[in-house]
Amino acid sequence: MAPINPAIAATFAPPVMEARRWLQGMTFPPDRPLLNVSQAAPVEPPPEPLRAAIAQASLDRPEAHLYGPVLGNPDLRAALSAEFGSAYGGQVAPEQVAITQGCNQAFCATIATLAGAGDEIILPTPWYFNHKMWLDMQDIRAVPLPCGADMLPDPGHAARLIGPATRAIVLVTPNNPSGAEYPADLVRGFYDLAARHGLALILDETYRDFDSRSGPPHDLLTLPDWGRTVVQLYSFSKAYRLTGHRVGALIASVNRMVQIEKFLDAVAISTSQLGQIGALWGLTHLRDWLAGERAEILSRRAATTEALSDLPGWRLKSAGAYFAWVEHPFDIGSPDLARRMLREISVLALPGTMFMASDDPAGARHLRLAFANVDRGGIVELARRLASLGA
Amino acid sequence: MAPINPAIAATFAPPVMEARRWLQGMTFPPDRPLLNVSQAAPVEPPPEPLRAAIAQASLDRPEAHLYGPVLGNPDLRAALSAEFGSAYGGQVAPEQVAITQGCNQAFCATIATLAGAGDEIILPTPWYFNHKMWLDMQDIRAVPLPCGADMLPDPGHAARLIGPATRAIVLVTPNNPSGAEYPADLVRGFYDLAARHGLALILDETYRDFDSRSGPPHDLLTLPDWGRTVVQLYSFSKAYRLTGHRVGALIASVNRMVQIEKFLDAVAISTSQLGQIGALWGLTHLRDWLAGERAEILSRRAATTEALSDLPGWRLKSAGAYFAWVEHPFDIGSPDLARRMLREISVLALPGTMFMASDDPAGARHLRLAFANVDRGGIVELARRLASLGA
Repeated sequence: MAPINPAIAATFAPPVMEARRWLQGMTFPPDRPLLNVSQAAPVEPPPEPLRAAIAQASLDRPEAHLYGPVLGNPDLRAALSAEFGSAYGGQVAPEQVAITQGCNQAFCATIATLAGAGDEIILPTPWYFNHKMWLDMQDIRAVPLPCGADMLPDPGHAARLIGPATRAIVLVTPNNPSGAEYPADLVRGFYDLAARHGLALILDETYRDFDSRSGPPHDLLTLPDWGRTVVQLYSFSKAYRLTGHRVGALIASVNRMVQIEKFLDAVAISTSQLGQIGALWGLTHLRDWLAGERAEILSRRAATTEALSDLPGWRLKSAGAYFAWVEHPFDIGSPDLARRMLREISVLALPGTMFMASDDPAGARHLRLAFANVDRGGIVELARRLASLGA
Repeated sequence: MAPINPAIAATFAPPVMEARRWLQGMTFPPDRPLLNVSQAAPVEPPPEPLRAAIAQASLDRPEAHLYGPVLGNPDLRAALSAEFGSAYGGQVAPEQVAITQGCNQAFCATIATLAGAGDEIILPTPWYFNHKMWLDMQDIRAVPLPCGADMLPDPGHAARLIGPATRAIVLVTPNNPSGAEYPADLVRGFYDLAARHGLALILDETYRDFDSRSGPPHDLLTLPDWGRTVVQLYSFSKAYRLTGHRVGALIASVNRMVQIEKFLDAVAISTSQLGQIGALWGLTHLRDWLAGERAEILSRRAATTEALSDLPGWRLKSAGAYFAWVEHPFDIGSPDLARRMLREISVLALPGTMFMASDDPAGARHLRLAFANVDRGGIVELARRLASLGA
């Protein structure tokens, strides 16, 4: 029998696919249909004019079906560099932008340029599970940095975790799974720490378009030397509802881009042309529409905060972007509770254990609720159902 | 300064991007335009009805813009399992098929399930450069298995290269870069060797649709235990001119698929929906059209064989699928010759050094000519220009 690489064998299975399997064979009463707060993804397709632009490109643009450059189409790279330059008040050249097959790939490519088997990467916990999975299968050690009660990581604590094998610190803001928005001065504190130790600071801002704050979420791109330390990740999937096209991006120094290009050539060759055309169309034409989307999600966040604050025994730890992170009041672990919620109140949510190491007791106490796909009435109903769960 | 992973720093740069850079700033005389035989990819878009089907899906099918299952859409997995089952006379279940973001990714995913840093994979040389790049950046040792004068690898020779760290043998047939079609009994010989030693046999058949032989190219999928040893890779890009959509596939045991799913979830989440819809449309509707494409490429292969056989000093080692592998008659190395050909006869071809280790002297003596994109008149012209090159 051909071998199995022990590192991938020891990697956990995809949590979202596992949660989908829980649904197999289940039926829900007509008066209590499924409330699915497990997914961190739009459930509606992009606006019709964007779909039409993609359709038109398929018909009219031969190059929309053929290989593009490994690092992405020059027009999209230029547009995103301009967008980041203006939104962050910094200097980002088109050559410092790469387009990837989704933001997960941007993370994997970044890690490949930084670390190999035996190296260490610091991940605040709860972490984004796909980050942890990639590190595990690469035999890179994920060093957990537990967030405080406010769901923020502490640079002073991180400093004590840095050793000779440390290569980078990863921040996800707004955070998946907690929704916490990291203050600019906190991000700057991590930058100073990383720069002082010669580490990379990887900033995953997949959910930046739904940040509740106005103005740039950090000032790192205004620093003349940002490229020595910072790698910024972005996704077009959430903003423009393009999850099925797989278009993400990363911003890094030109030196690092030389290495990124090797990874992307070997794994991807290039990113979907129609996806890139759609992303550029969205970036160019959907600014107002996106502002409306953001306002709607922020109003759902407010509804979630209100509905969950009143919930006896439950504790809302943080909420933002698509997510709320909640502590539950029961004596059972979150995986069992998640299955029970599905059976008894037709709610599908992901247990906290999916977002941290199995020996971290916080996993059993928490759940992630992806509220963004539920309207305000649904959020009230979600809280009502959670309240109905007996001990 | 944030670190660079030494394994990726030591990986060579993408050859196709390097060759493209050679073209920057060059102009060619009107009576001697560029003859580009560097690319292994269609230059024409897919047939209009396929482009229309993709456009229609963008407009009419909401799910065409949203995440799909990690291992691919069930309809495409079922269609490809039926296609391989019938074409190879074997048993391939839909659950044994995964859809990937191109065939390179299928290779990367397969390797991730088999090997980690320090392990070894046997690659016949000349090798496909993206395979070698992936192994290098993963710190996996590529063990070269030099092909004979007939451009076929020898299982007896491979047997002597197997050691405790060996995890797999990779065969690309029809081969990139040589074009050689590996006989079914040779493939079976490698299967027996791999099975005997508990290794995987990875068969990359990206160019299978242009194989000159009728009937199945090997009988491995008829063996009841194929899944213990075989991983089969396939690409929709070449057959249906879908290179810009990034759709490939792999066939493996359900046990291995559990591991493949982890890799794809972490890197890809899912493959482009429009790409999968296009691939399924092609598989369903373009069989006759593809037969015509194959006939055209086989006629170009015949023209190439004829034109290059008469060329004084040059030696055609093999030809098939998109490629001819030729030995040149000059005293300079192939990288210098490739640059000289570009300047003096406006021909862009890839030097043999891109397909083997720098210490392998065969690299300097050979070139890959990707003839498939040149019509028969162009092939005669290519030979005429090569003949005009002085010593």
